[in-house]
Amino acid sequence: MTAVYLKKKVSRRVENGHPWVFANEVGKIEGAIDPGDIVDLLTHEGKFVGRGYANPKSQIFVRLLTRNKQEMINDAFFLNRISTAWEYRQKLGYTENCRLIFGEADFLPALIIDKFNDYFVLQTLALGIDRWKPAIVDALNTVFSPKGIYERNDVPVRELEGLPLVKGFLSAPFNTLITIRENGLQFLVDVENGQKTGYFLDQQDNRRAIEHIVKGADVLGAFTYTGTFEIHAAHYGAKSVLGLDISANAVMQADRNAALNGFDKVCSFMEVNAFDVLKAWAKEGRQFDVVMLDPPAFTKSRENINKAITGYKEINLRGMKLVKPGGFLVTTSCTNLVQPDLFLEIIEMAAKDARRTLRQVVYRAQASDHPIVWGLENTHYLKFLIVQVL
Amino acid sequence: MTAVYLKKKVSRRVENGHPWVFANEVGKIEGAIDPGDIVDLLTHEGKFVGRGYANPKSQIFVRLLTRNKQEMINDAFFLNRISTAWEYRQKLGYTENCRLIFGEADFLPALIIDKFNDYFVLQTLALGIDRWKPAIVDALNTVFSPKGIYERNDVPVRELEGLPLVKGFLSAPFNTLITIRENGLQFLVDVENGQKTGYFLDQQDNRRAIEHIVKGADVLGAFTYTGTFEIHAAHYGAKSVLGLDISANAVMQADRNAALNGFDKVCSFMEVNAFDVLKAWAKEGRQFDVVMLDPPAFTKSRENINKAITGYKEINLRGMKLVKPGGFLVTTSCTNLVQPDLFLEIIEMAAKDARRTLRQVVYRAQASDHPIVWGLENTHYLKFLIVQVL
Repeated sequence: MTAVYLKKKVSRRVENGHPWVFANEVGKIEGAIDPGDIVDLLTHEGKFVGRGYANPKSQIFVRLLTRNKQEMINDAFFLNRISTAWEYRQKLGYTENCRLIFGEADFLPALIIDKFNDYFVLQTLALGIDRWKPAIVDALNTVFSPKGIYERNDVPVRELEGLPLVKGFLSAPFNTLITIRENGLQFLVDVENGQKTGYFLDQQDNRRAIEHIVKGADVLGAFTYTGTFEIHAAHYGAKSVLGLDISANAVMQADRNAALNGFDKVCSFMEVNAFDVLKAWAKEGRQFDVVMLDPPAFTKSRENINKAITGYKEINLRGMKLVKPGGFLVTTSCTNLVQPDLFLEIIEMAAKDARRTLRQVVYRAQASDHPIVWGLENTHYLKFLIVQVL
Repeated sequence: MTAVYLKKKVSRRVENGHPWVFANEVGKIEGAIDPGDIVDLLTHEGKFVGRGYANPKSQIFVRLLTRNKQEMINDAFFLNRISTAWEYRQKLGYTENCRLIFGEADFLPALIIDKFNDYFVLQTLALGIDRWKPAIVDALNTVFSPKGIYERNDVPVRELEGLPLVKGFLSAPFNTLITIRENGLQFLVDVENGQKTGYFLDQQDNRRAIEHIVKGADVLGAFTYTGTFEIHAAHYGAKSVLGLDISANAVMQADRNAALNGFDKVCSFMEVNAFDVLKAWAKEGRQFDVVMLDPPAFTKSRENINKAITGYKEINLRGMKLVKPGGFLVTTSCTNLVQPDLFLEIIEMAAKDARRTLRQVVYRAQASDHPIVWGLENTHYLKFLIVQVL
């Protein structure tokens, strides 16, 4: 086994057990490394730290898979990790759809697997984990005997690892437009062409949190994507639901999902730029009982964090103005670059500008099938907030 | 109306709209003030800030009731505030039991009203609000036609306001041991002699959050009080539940509640000091699938904050050690002196000492019938956390 030694001075992060080791944290290397190889990580004094995969071509030189010296990285290792992850989800009540593997939080860095009842969508976002794709697929076949497995590796972050952007079947082909059930509703999931793995399972519990506030309400949703929050609003008794999305394809899917659940009379969707429309409607004095905002991340890099802050503030300001006094704003943020405290500060700034007083009704992170490991910032990414807007 | 002027330099807190004005923030006063009188609060330049009640004998000189110059403080004001608060609770689905008035968060500083189906328990914790008790009782009678209203003003904080400690009926007398329903269970609430108003409604939603993790589990609960979390555990399918409390009376009530729900075979309660017992059992190597800790605040003053930190850390350390690998710790803190970030840090420190890795499953604040107003620290007090302990 090739041995990678840490420098004498290591970052607090590595000391505290973070599974990533950056290239500038690596001291000497004993043995050869082919990109993606499994290596042992040692302190500068030679004490075992952990075992993981290395990629000298990536900024993240080593990603640890285990801290147990006795644990070998082989097919059985992946079967074991996936079985344990599945036990955890089942224990928490996620028996039909779930994020089965949430990367670092399941001690499988750069691996994402979503389970949509009998179908699985997989992303291997680093070279070292990509190499183990056959073992991972075997493990899924062993544990689940799935109807299908699909690879959504058309993700730009793979390029940082020298990996190609690809998507396709890792099983016999199947109809990639599948139907899932959630909270008593049905949704079509396009695992081939949908965003990310095709569906945002991370909001599956939060969607239930709107149950009471939407009853009898006129609801506006912005950045609706395939209309999941909006269709939940109709399900929970909203009088009318209007959803906005800039993508014609998203609007088409949202319409289809509304019809699938018999809510095509209650829900309607418009292909528009939410930023513009919300601003215009605020000027016109239009108001809703509930406004829901589920915007994209606005930035993917720490350098552009101000862009994200401005984006979140602007859209929330505009959204708030459209809420009737005493009504509710449902607002989310899905990037770990904006951590919870900052997100709440942004909402508070927006409230000041809008001259509205807020009361926090509900605050949550992502669903529990995406567990959070403190210190691993990228595992704590979703913020979901309901405030009353006075 | 007597006019209280702020000093020229006011604190950030007052500037941001906090309803409390401390004695040292008050400049000149025009007119006489009998303790408890309604006064107008003005800037040093004479601009209207708000209207509230004053108590020159209290550290908190003024507590604002409104920022609307047109709004007069009279019986109709209290009827209106209470009606609005009730609308909010109903809108959020709290139709049977709820904290009807949560002090500052309902713009009625120092007033607490809990609704237990047809019964109401009231606390007026400052002189200025105590004076309006007749108006408040009238409003409750008008809105609810309640079966009974009880005053739990036996709270030491009233002494700071020069108020006596009293408790008793504000309606025709009734049997003060009442039964409430929560999540399909029944609980006896002793509004006369129970802690605070007799029952902790603030955890009513969080009690449902243990549903999945306790299924088939051996569960230990510490600081159980009347056994509400433990009886929920049994209801959700725990194999065995053991609850600990230092008070013989609490254990008696917990036993009675368990029997009331038919769980006297599954649940048992012990009158012991949880600190000692958890330590002893950890030494013996006893383990449970789920450990639940719902400890008291440990301190009521900022001066003793270190005592609280030490208390929380110790009890969580001991609790964690009793969790089987892969099991769950449910842990809470109910003092606003330990804010969320600090609470999570304490749990992290405990995990380091226990040499256990944690994964955050659920993190929440109190139930939504206790809304949080940012900037009013005392409205953000409950932390509820479930972690998997690896």
